[in-house]
Amino acid sequence: MVKNAAGRLVPRCVNGVDQTAFQGVGGYVPAGMKAKPRVSSCAEFPADGNKIVRSLADALKKAGLASGMTISTHHHLRNGDILTNYLFDTIKRLGVRDIRWYPSASFPVHEHLIRYLEDGTIHHIEGSMNGPLGRFASSGRMRGTGILRSHGTRYQAVQDGEVHIDIAVLAAPSADSFGNANGLTGPSACGPLGFALVDSDYADNVIVVTDHLVDFPCVPWHIQGNNVDAVVVIDSLGDPSKIVSGTTEITKSPDRLLIAEYIARFIEDAGIMRDGFSLQAGAGGINLAFLLSLKERMKRAGVRARFMRGGSTKYLVEMLREGLTEYILDGQAFDQEGIRSLAADPRHVNTSPFTSYNYHGKGNFASMLDAVVLGATEVDVNFNANVVTHSDGLLLHGLGGWQDCLFAKCTILAVPSLRDRVPIIVDRVTTLCGPSELIDVIVTERGIAVNPRRADLLKRISGSSLPIRSLTDMQTEVFALCGGRPAAPRLDENHCGAIVKWVDGTVLDSIYSLASH
Amino acid sequence: MVKNAAGRLVPRCVNGVDQTAFQGVGGYVPAGMKAKPRVSSCAEFPADGNKIVRSLADALKKAGLASGMTISTHHHLRNGDILTNYLFDTIKRLGVRDIRWYPSASFPVHEHLIRYLEDGTIHHIEGSMNGPLGRFASSGRMRGTGILRSHGTRYQAVQDGEVHIDIAVLAAPSADSFGNANGLTGPSACGPLGFALVDSDYADNVIVVTDHLVDFPCVPWHIQGNNVDAVVVIDSLGDPSKIVSGTTEITKSPDRLLIAEYIARFIEDAGIMRDGFSLQAGAGGINLAFLLSLKERMKRAGVRARFMRGGSTKYLVEMLREGLTEYILDGQAFDQEGIRSLAADPRHVNTSPFTSYNYHGKGNFASMLDAVVLGATEVDVNFNANVVTHSDGLLLHGLGGWQDCLFAKCTILAVPSLRDRVPIIVDRVTTLCGPSELIDVIVTERGIAVNPRRADLLKRISGSSLPIRSLTDMQTEVFALCGGRPAAPRLDENHCGAIVKWVDGTVLDSIYSLASH
Repeated sequence: MVKNAAGRLVPRCVNGVDQTAFQGVGGYVPAGMKAKPRVSSCAEFPADGNKIVRSLADALKKAGLASGMTISTHHHLRNGDILTNYLFDTIKRLGVRDIRWYPSASFPVHEHLIRYLEDGTIHHIEGSMNGPLGRFASSGRMRGTGILRSHGTRYQAVQDGEVHIDIAVLAAPSADSFGNANGLTGPSACGPLGFALVDSDYADNVIVVTDHLVDFPCVPWHIQGNNVDAVVVIDSLGDPSKIVSGTTEITKSPDRLLIAEYIARFIEDAGIMRDGFSLQAGAGGINLAFLLSLKERMKRAGVRARFMRGGSTKYLVEMLREGLTEYILDGQAFDQEGIRSLAADPRHVNTSPFTSYNYHGKGNFASMLDAVVLGATEVDVNFNANVVTHSDGLLLHGLGGWQDCLFAKCTILAVPSLRDRVPIIVDRVTTLCGPSELIDVIVTERGIAVNPRRADLLKRISGSSLPIRSLTDMQTEVFALCGGRPAAPRLDENHCGAIVKWVDGTVLDSIYSLASH
Repeated sequence: MVKNAAGRLVPRCVNGVDQTAFQGVGGYVPAGMKAKPRVSSCAEFPADGNKIVRSLADALKKAGLASGMTISTHHHLRNGDILTNYLFDTIKRLGVRDIRWYPSASFPVHEHLIRYLEDGTIHHIEGSMNGPLGRFASSGRMRGTGILRSHGTRYQAVQDGEVHIDIAVLAAPSADSFGNANGLTGPSACGPLGFALVDSDYADNVIVVTDHLVDFPCVPWHIQGNNVDAVVVIDSLGDPSKIVSGTTEITKSPDRLLIAEYIARFIEDAGIMRDGFSLQAGAGGINLAFLLSLKERMKRAGVRARFMRGGSTKYLVEMLREGLTEYILDGQAFDQEGIRSLAADPRHVNTSPFTSYNYHGKGNFASMLDAVVLGATEVDVNFNANVVTHSDGLLLHGLGGWQDCLFAKCTILAVPSLRDRVPIIVDRVTTLCGPSELIDVIVTERGIAVNPRRADLLKRISGSSLPIRSLTDMQTEVFALCGGRPAAPRLDENHCGAIVKWVDGTVLDSIYSLASH
């Protein structure tokens, strides 16, 4: 283990691969070349463009599936994903073992795969682990070490050759026999397919799996058939009711509504809400309430945004339709309105982790945003933040685009000061995901803390009636309420169940397994 | 020199680079890896996304411009291109020499650059040379050997690392300060920008030059700002009246109208014109007349195409609007109607040499077409064809997408039997561009020749009243008319002014300089 620039102990080597420790934001500058995929030839592909293979098992065999390979999937089907479970049932049936699974994220539906983690079909997971698989990693029972990467870092790792994907198995709600694909129509429509872009560009073998085969050309081709080796048609990719899930409910909690209101006021009072501004807010309950409040303020002030970033929801789509934003730049759709708008409205634009988040590009969209509103599981009094583990040490969430978004001009974290009676403002975050220098504002129902590094912001809101407070002040208040500091998690510091990468591929922190493992 | 699989003598080494001789269609299968561009970092680019540099000279200096470098440009501005001439004026002024120029094509407007070929600013050209620069290469005065590549082969050469582009200078009719760009609006609107795609993906330095800067985001981003190093704003990229030129005139020549009619009848009689079929025809006078005739036949028969390939013209756009084709898949727009339709109609789809033509992909669109109609400068009695030189040996045309298109299910060449009293059906083509096994039908005003390899086609039109004849038969008739065989060109077989690549990067033929040089 080595202490990195954030003061965290991180392993020098993970799963047999040497690692670079975090060197500070912008500290590590890559010197290498991008990965170089194999050159293909049309001479080896059917001239009529028809790449349909009878079954997923046949396609995997054709791709040379073997033990120890890296298999990637995307998570646009979210908790409705049937394909990935079917994929690993098939791999198990073929007697293949020790797979490195490289999903863009996993969800509770993938609890089914714990049996394959236990029996060695899957060696370990590199990708966001939401819920059961995160809990499994925390238990210390995974054969390898989990690696958490943000959406941008997942792209970067493949682009830079850190992760070589042998076979990408890509769920495609619409596809033609050549492999052109999108997520806009069909029974398993999910919206964008951007999380699968890097897989399709760099994997040795790309298998597109669809339950909705259309005649060539499948337009638009968010996945390009020219990168695809085989197309498989199955009955159903996913459960539509869970692909587009009910997560887009506005919070009813008075505390959270207050946080939403504080953020909207902050953005207005700090002068961020001005003609031509840009904003990203996720689809959580606080964020949606914030968006509605902001919308009213924008209408009142006659202000129009140049663009808003998705994940898209009906609330964002309404703002587009009402002319409150000129564009939505969208990486994933969270409801049917988001999907419909992306398919029909040219101002609702498909984006990818390459355009939006990849830190090893010539810039990206994330740093151009005037403001972003994000959540966190913990923040510390120095503005460092955690988004993957809770104070009891359990890994329960992925990084998503969270780290990538921290580069916005004003990063605002919306956090209730208590969750299930556990204080959220801690002395030291259990897991460091976001370094304090990138976190500008933390908003709780008890007030708003502005990072002292942002004297400019403090000055801009000096005339505001908003309750600006220090994090220590709010922390003291909360500790008094719930009887002091939360108990330290009981962790086994000799067993690192997973690591957290930074956007440049360096190691930001270690996630220890629970001591009870 | 070595004799290749087509019986042509080709150099083993060109401009100091070892070459592979043509090994037959589908004979050469690549074993290597794609080129690997350098990894960049957002840490080295402005966080606000603004990459504007004051002048082209500054951007070139920032990119490290040096003698001996490879500079690429695209030809979407066609004969209205002002930028490329300005680019080389600037390079000359900076005192830099021996540039390998890698355009996707050059036009008569680039005659301005002959001074730089003469004084050594430009060492040689690798790219289509239409008109004066082709004539210059034929004169034997170019310092290096010209290399002609099709649109697909130009993509392949960069992708496969045969051509490393140091600096790409990309004309962008619309662009934002981040470098997102398209050709759809602005005073120099040209339609698609696909010919610049590979440059933007692989060049070490990418400079976007625009005369129409728009606020971020420039949507759609046919060129992705994430690949762009610098943006330069200049007064004018081009002359709009020559960007969208008057080439889209339907022929008035009775002979050519007859050829057009023969082709339309052939496509109907051979059963190619059926519901869901696909077709590509260029924008030459014969092709447009053919398209109008085919359109009437489709209406009469109640037949609808699944897709037509551009270059797009108002004639193709009308077919889309009238429901005679479901999609236009378009690589370049030849008139304002083409540009407007591409910008506004989601069924008019932007394509690139990667999707359509790259032979070193996992398939491409070209081979999926039911029929393609192309021109030729010469054909021989064995169905080989030439499209770059004339029988006098002069290099006057580029390959365009011609070779790539030969992979269609039915390749039809439309050729008048005489041009300026010179017979077109020869014993041996001056330059081999298309091997006979890929050329199915040759149509002249004297009749239609079907390649004997295509017994299936011959059978399908056996009931037709079309004048099916042999090439020898038509040749004899033409020779009788004009007093025998054309004079052999006077070439210097010790001086290869240019070579013709095949779609897989092998060398198909040599273009000798004129003996008078």
